[in-house]
Amino acid sequence: MNATVNLDTYEVGYDIPASIGMDEADIQTPCLVVDLDAFEHNIEVMRAYCEKMGIRHRLHGKMHKSVDVANYQIEKGNSCGVCCQKVSEAEVFARAGIKDVLVSNQVRDPAKIDRLANLPTFGARTICCVDDIDNVAELSEAAVRHGTEIEVLVEIDCGAGRCGVSAGQPVVDIAKAVEAAEGLKFSGIQAYQGAMQHMKSYEDRKEKIDIAVDMVKQSMEMLKAEGLECDIVGGGGTGSYYFEGASGVYNELQCGSYAFMDADYQTIHDEKDQPISEFKNSLFILTSVMSHAKSDKAICDAGLKAQSIDSGLPYIFGRDDVEYIKCSDEHGVIEDSGNALKVNDKLKLVPGHCDPTCNVHDWYVGVRNGKVESLWPVSARGKAY
Amino acid sequence: MNATVNLDTYEVGYDIPASIGMDEADIQTPCLVVDLDAFEHNIEVMRAYCEKMGIRHRLHGKMHKSVDVANYQIEKGNSCGVCCQKVSEAEVFARAGIKDVLVSNQVRDPAKIDRLANLPTFGARTICCVDDIDNVAELSEAAVRHGTEIEVLVEIDCGAGRCGVSAGQPVVDIAKAVEAAEGLKFSGIQAYQGAMQHMKSYEDRKEKIDIAVDMVKQSMEMLKAEGLECDIVGGGGTGSYYFEGASGVYNELQCGSYAFMDADYQTIHDEKDQPISEFKNSLFILTSVMSHAKSDKAICDAGLKAQSIDSGLPYIFGRDDVEYIKCSDEHGVIEDSGNALKVNDKLKLVPGHCDPTCNVHDWYVGVRNGKVESLWPVSARGKAY
Repeated sequence: MNATVNLDTYEVGYDIPASIGMDEADIQTPCLVVDLDAFEHNIEVMRAYCEKMGIRHRLHGKMHKSVDVANYQIEKGNSCGVCCQKVSEAEVFARAGIKDVLVSNQVRDPAKIDRLANLPTFGARTICCVDDIDNVAELSEAAVRHGTEIEVLVEIDCGAGRCGVSAGQPVVDIAKAVEAAEGLKFSGIQAYQGAMQHMKSYEDRKEKIDIAVDMVKQSMEMLKAEGLECDIVGGGGTGSYYFEGASGVYNELQCGSYAFMDADYQTIHDEKDQPISEFKNSLFILTSVMSHAKSDKAICDAGLKAQSIDSGLPYIFGRDDVEYIKCSDEHGVIEDSGNALKVNDKLKLVPGHCDPTCNVHDWYVGVRNGKVESLWPVSARGKAY
Repeated sequence: MNATVNLDTYEVGYDIPASIGMDEADIQTPCLVVDLDAFEHNIEVMRAYCEKMGIRHRLHGKMHKSVDVANYQIEKGNSCGVCCQKVSEAEVFARAGIKDVLVSNQVRDPAKIDRLANLPTFGARTICCVDDIDNVAELSEAAVRHGTEIEVLVEIDCGAGRCGVSAGQPVVDIAKAVEAAEGLKFSGIQAYQGAMQHMKSYEDRKEKIDIAVDMVKQSMEMLKAEGLECDIVGGGGTGSYYFEGASGVYNELQCGSYAFMDADYQTIHDEKDQPISEFKNSLFILTSVMSHAKSDKAICDAGLKAQSIDSGLPYIFGRDDVEYIKCSDEHGVIEDSGNALKVNDKLKLVPGHCDPTCNVHDWYVGVRNGKVESLWPVSARGKAY
């Protein structure tokens, strides 16, 4: 697998943490490494699940922000396209040749609406979400001006308390306005329950999704009574996809974290009350010990600028004798009561939360059998607009 | 003030959040904006303080990672040079022509040591810290190989419990080894007390720095007995600089956050038990409301990928009627019980912690009198190696 960029233009060490073929031991830290075997396993698990259930998977590109990862998910994982949260991310994916792009979010700023309406000129089916009937005219005006078509999903707030309208009549009202608007097409419902993804108990999560499914079902029936069919009923995450997948209502999953996993998602339990196990840790922050002036504490080079700790500190993969206990901007403090670590020892950290951790890095270093096999840019890193 | 890059090569919206001369209202969000009047005020306060005390200020470039900001601090703020935490940051500053660069951290990886020893070839005085006598030979070998000189500060752990040796004899041992090593020069002591910077009480902070000052003083006396003088005795931060500055021992301050400020530093109190007030908020995350489907909650476009919340959530500048109460990857939830906000309203967030917040952005948009005056790249963003 190759990067979408010309690697010869980057200086190893200064611009990029590794080179193809390099021994894993020589990678410059801190950086993100991807265990390619584990990554490919995860993609295959989701592909096989969706095949079995007869539903689509639309990879969530906001998690990794990488064209290379997305291309792999489409080619090998049979994903039908990309979803992402920002117009600037959508631009990165569309410009790179991805043909089906959903902005699973509201687009309200006039300049952003203009850019969204221009996306089909890159050859991408372009879809966005709406939760305010006033947005319909804004989108329509831009699509007409660009001579393009924007597909619209009406977003339902199915429990996350963030964006989205209430189920039922508000969905119908917006859908009808979309259908009546030039340059727009009503394509279905967006109903992602983000607030329950990390609840530990399987039963608690199921209960939340049952509510969401009911909301979607009711809205679909009301739409149908108006002659409106949903091409897409989208939602689902790594902590819930089997509920939406088996609902008979959702037809498109939108999982992100499953490809890489993180410490927070590993705390949720399956039906047997065991930590979920179908996805492997494929993403790590590789870090080096760079000071051990006190015998019981090792200091490593991955702190707040190598990760996001919003969902907790990382843990050290494959080690139970040492523990990452604290961090500051550029340092991590590792409890090493047995004085097991030495300066320049490398450790793999499993980040607490993969999405915002990926967003601070510029590269994914893909490794297999101790060698660097791929270097993928975090193509849409920092694309927040 | 101009950027160090050719702005014509960037596409507004896709690559860059604004253009020079643009109305503040048209800036694409979320992004970092710098209130240039407040920023310049902060730089002048520190310049005047150091002039009064007859000490130097070495700006901490790890906070903003920007060549443009550093150049302003050197030219207008009379800073003597830059300090930073990573070799890759030092490379950015040295390659941009900054002539005095301290890596206020340990450098242990062989490839990084090699790159450090190459820095003087860019014309930069190159200084690093050492807390392990084994590091001396490593640095010396590389400096000799490159035909360069690396200056060394011995780092004392003066209370932060991170890197650094104990005061006294270990300092002397390393200093003597440095003096004896080819290609190296002993230049003094690094003694930054990072753990106390954010303690609320002035007296508590003072107590911690008094301990640090004693450690430094004792070490300097022992060095002097061996004929070793300290050209640099460095340390101090935004929460402590007046203690080190008045100590008669430290001669070089290393403040970072003072230039921008953040919510966490605003919780610390001065001698009169009032929030510190000498520095103004000059850094903001500009964000837009992009959903208001529920009358009491506005959703804005700045979440975890527009900031670091390790030190708490941001607050909304200049508004006491609305409150940023929660965030997810790309969204912030704003309590708006009075339904005061409308879609596309812009708000300025004061980040909880400026350093890791700056590290997720690519640009600083400098504003004055409602217009964009400067666009500065976050030159060393993501430079963590």
